Amino acid sequence: MLIVFTGNGKGKTSAALGTALRSLGWNRKVAIIQFIKGNKATGEWQFGKFGTNSGQFVVKQFFDDKQYSISEKSILENPEYKKSCKQAWNFAKETILSKKYDLIILDEINNAIHLKLLDENETLHFVETHGRVSAFDIIMTGRNASQKLIDIADMVTEMKEIKHPFQKGVKAKEGIDY
Amino acid sequence: MLIVFTGNGKGKTSAALGTALRSLGWNRKVAIIQFIKGNKATGEWQFGKFGTNSGQFVVKQFFDDKQYSISEKSILENPEYKKSCKQAWNFAKETILSKKYDLIILDEINNAIHLKLLDENETLHFVETHGRVSAFDIIMTGRNASQKLIDIADMVTEMKEIKHPFQKGVKAKEGIDY
Repeated sequence: MLIVFTGNGKGKTSAALGTALRSLGWNRKVAIIQFIKGNKATGEWQFGKFGTNSGQFVVKQFFDDKQYSISEKSILENPEYKKSCKQAWNFAKETILSKKYDLIILDEINNAIHLKLLDENETLHFVETHGRVSAFDIIMTGRNASQKLIDIADMVTEMKEIKHPFQKGVKAKEGIDY
Repeated sequence: MLIVFTGNGKGKTSAALGTALRSLGWNRKVAIIQFIKGNKATGEWQFGKFGTNSGQFVVKQFFDDKQYSISEKSILENPEYKKSCKQAWNFAKETILSKKYDLIILDEINNAIHLKLLDENETLHFVETHGRVSAFDIIMTGRNASQKLIDIADMVTEMKEIKHPFQKGVKAKEGIDY
């Protein structure tokens, strides 16, 4: 099954991580590949460290930064983002083809496609061809999911911001936002 | 912080569970109290069994059923739901007052309030008075969050269904839907 969490509201990566937690409860194996994101001081990264020994829960990042929230402008101005997105995508393809995982989360990939850090046609063609087998599930998160992606997905939820404390200048919070 | 995940789309409980996973990564303690739901064959329940020893991740249910999805009609026709919701709410109040947890998830409580299985004024008054302290966070999930709840919350996301395989008659899937 191909699941997409998109929209401008809080909860896209969280919903993917919650699906991961449920999968772990069923003893399924989970791989999370984070596009654009590269901060290791996050709850999911630290949770992943515990799971690394068993290989049941793996989090992979390809960029090293210290930010929780990155502006589109700074992503587009820094060629390292494009480079690391390509590395992440190559790793994602290997992971999908390996068939070692029951759930593969491509975190922030929607936005990486939107910002043209990844080629949309190639990415969606691969996901549709190799990633939609009944044996495992793929979740693609991030704002700005394209219509093409929505068309090929089995399940799509838009996380719509109704109210957010960042609107009032409140800072991102440990365990909640990262 | 008081967080609300509402709307008709997939991802409300998942987003709460993902916040739980992040919190566990930060070594925070998490309690999940499930209103209306009472099925123990779920990923979160089975994940909770592993965490019970340490008390770091606790899932509590007050109703015993075998369904993943329950119609409003059958909830309203069965007085046991109202009874178990009251038990769940009493437990939730104790849990909030105990200050033992860093994150308390009141799963499906929005719908329990909407269906009048819980008194809205009492519930929201308690949450606003005792539950919004900086030391811990509360997440309230479920469809039909009331305007009063949205008004007192710090963060609200509407999970909006764009596409769902249930529309096509596909059944709920282990590790994804439960």
